[in-house]
Amino acid sequence: MLVKDCFVSAPGKAILHGEHAVVHGKVALAVSLNLRTYLQLKATTTGKVCINLPNIDTFLCWSLFDCCVLLLITARREEVKLLDSELVRRLREFVGVTNGNLDTGNMATLAFLYIYLSLFGSGELPSLTVSVWSELPTGAGLGSSAAYSVCLAAALLCASGAIHTPLKELDHTARWCQEELELINSWAFQGEMIIHGNPSGVDNAVGTWGGMLRFLAGKIIPLSKVPLLRILLTNTKVPRSTKVLVARVKDKINKFPSIMTPVLDSVDAISCTCEKVLSEMTCEPITGEHYNILEELIDINQHHLNVMGVGHPALDTLCQVTLTRGLHSKLTGAGGGGCGITLLRPGTVDHTVQDLRDCGFDCWETSIGGPGVQQHSPSSIKKEVLEILNQY
Amino acid sequence: MLVKDCFVSAPGKAILHGEHAVVHGKVALAVSLNLRTYLQLKATTTGKVCINLPNIDTFLCWSLFDCCVLLLITARREEVKLLDSELVRRLREFVGVTNGNLDTGNMATLAFLYIYLSLFGSGELPSLTVSVWSELPTGAGLGSSAAYSVCLAAALLCASGAIHTPLKELDHTARWCQEELELINSWAFQGEMIIHGNPSGVDNAVGTWGGMLRFLAGKIIPLSKVPLLRILLTNTKVPRSTKVLVARVKDKINKFPSIMTPVLDSVDAISCTCEKVLSEMTCEPITGEHYNILEELIDINQHHLNVMGVGHPALDTLCQVTLTRGLHSKLTGAGGGGCGITLLRPGTVDHTVQDLRDCGFDCWETSIGGPGVQQHSPSSIKKEVLEILNQY
Repeated sequence: MLVKDCFVSAPGKAILHGEHAVVHGKVALAVSLNLRTYLQLKATTTGKVCINLPNIDTFLCWSLFDCCVLLLITARREEVKLLDSELVRRLREFVGVTNGNLDTGNMATLAFLYIYLSLFGSGELPSLTVSVWSELPTGAGLGSSAAYSVCLAAALLCASGAIHTPLKELDHTARWCQEELELINSWAFQGEMIIHGNPSGVDNAVGTWGGMLRFLAGKIIPLSKVPLLRILLTNTKVPRSTKVLVARVKDKINKFPSIMTPVLDSVDAISCTCEKVLSEMTCEPITGEHYNILEELIDINQHHLNVMGVGHPALDTLCQVTLTRGLHSKLTGAGGGGCGITLLRPGTVDHTVQDLRDCGFDCWETSIGGPGVQQHSPSSIKKEVLEILNQY
Repeated sequence: MLVKDCFVSAPGKAILHGEHAVVHGKVALAVSLNLRTYLQLKATTTGKVCINLPNIDTFLCWSLFDCCVLLLITARREEVKLLDSELVRRLREFVGVTNGNLDTGNMATLAFLYIYLSLFGSGELPSLTVSVWSELPTGAGLGSSAAYSVCLAAALLCASGAIHTPLKELDHTARWCQEELELINSWAFQGEMIIHGNPSGVDNAVGTWGGMLRFLAGKIIPLSKVPLLRILLTNTKVPRSTKVLVARVKDKINKFPSIMTPVLDSVDAISCTCEKVLSEMTCEPITGEHYNILEELIDINQHHLNVMGVGHPALDTLCQVTLTRGLHSKLTGAGGGGCGITLLRPGTVDHTVQDLRDCGFDCWETSIGGPGVQQHSPSSIKKEVLEILNQY
């Protein structure tokens, strides 16, 4: 079976407003982050299935014969909502993952083989090589594993013929219809379950649909239209544990319920106000006042996150450094270090990236609200990314 | 008529929690600040009434004859709730205050003569000299004018015999009974009305009763017992307009009602929680956890005040500098510069005063929650204050 080559990409994710508050039943806004993960799928005639993940120095091949043996003892599944735990167990054995070795490379390998075998297991296994390169830092709460899973799902579903190949001749990029995106998203969620155990589903939804999603009490609602906003994404590189930070906020709410409950209500109102402003920006001329409001909301929420106890001196530095350039920042995600976003106004030339790198931070100029998963013509992929992917 | 000499003092005021929120119907906690104003009243035989205010280089005398002439054309009043605007008008003429010259010295002079003439006007005017020295900076929102008015009211009411002289032989300090404090407070409020036009009455109440007051919707309730807490008081010396800052908060509430209303609710809960903790500290052994909570409340409120838009980079510096010493600070009063308070734990040796002075700030180590207006024996007054007062 010879499959068609393809290039796909999916964006990362940032929380614009509502991190932590969402744990307590409030609205959060998740947006696509235009630091993307790129995947090249190449048909081969080697009789092997190979995965190359140069970001994490993982390069692995398996013979199709060995994979077939694995499948003989696994029943084919149609239902994609639940994970096939028996297949996962066998795959762990197959790739030699012991319980104590749940590193990124192993998790990524398991997710790949799981989706590959699940989609092709009922027929002939195709000989192919998948190579993935990501602009996203891993483990920084920016949805890098979801972007990876979404790319895997899209490329392998295309290769299997379960969804069509949307790119027409002369197109640079193309996207799938709503129904096909649902299928991509559900397979990406399988990958996320393998990598994360108990994911919220927000990251793969952002990777699939892009733009902005409203997340409330477990329900994820993609928003119809949002403007593309320029931002700086800064990684303070201060390590933190999301679990510890979530517990810290919970403790503070329990300790001071009358003080903290209104703060969560205020964050909820920030998310709703932000959603309203962004929606206005898509249907009326964008003005400075729109940006003024977005900046005020960022400042207020950053103070609220400090009240919740999830700030960090490195994040204070981020806010101060950007404010000296007239820019407004907040942490994004779990806080306690990690990443922050800084809103840029259109057309402004920005020297802040260097200021922030001088603080020892990683910093990227990028955008939020861009497209979700898409197929690319090779010519539409940045030269440096294409060079990396074409090495394999 | 020969009056008895006396020394009195009254404390300044700081807002512990609830500044700005109080304008929108929320609870505020006002506390006495143990930077005090001292007043010496001396009987003289010069046939003159004199006021010496060395802090503001004001030294004035009037003949009792001239004062009597002024009184002949003014009716004696018994009601102290309302200001005798006719007397104020004549006094302005008398001391040569034109409309455009409402400086501190003129206002202080008017308040003194107003209370003096009102209290003694029905009988013989006594020949006396009043000298006042204050540890409080003026115009910094620390209730310096109220402390002055309270001292004037207490000393002149004592001299007129309207209240008794509480100091017994061998006493160092003594206070008046509740009824007499009410009278002092109401005459001090008259002084405040002359100086401020439309005062809230909080400052003179704190100067009179000391300790802590709860202020809610115009009602002022002195709290029975509060602990004495050591603090640093820092004056950033950044000038600001209370009126502009109050308007800024109002604008922000109007712009983002759903976001700002919960913030005011949270501030209200901070005041109530703080009141509860302080009350616990007076009836159970004081623990580190009491201080932990007080510090957390300070931090949260400071963030909320930043959300209201009344922060200032100088106040951020104050918070950062003190935090490097493990101390927690917030602005007090109007914000936008002005003063901040820093909680000190008992027994800690503190080098932060010098750190803050190195930032260009004025800084005092003092306490909050101390006594209100009191009479002093000369020996109970600090040597340097006594020396200043005895010059006159």
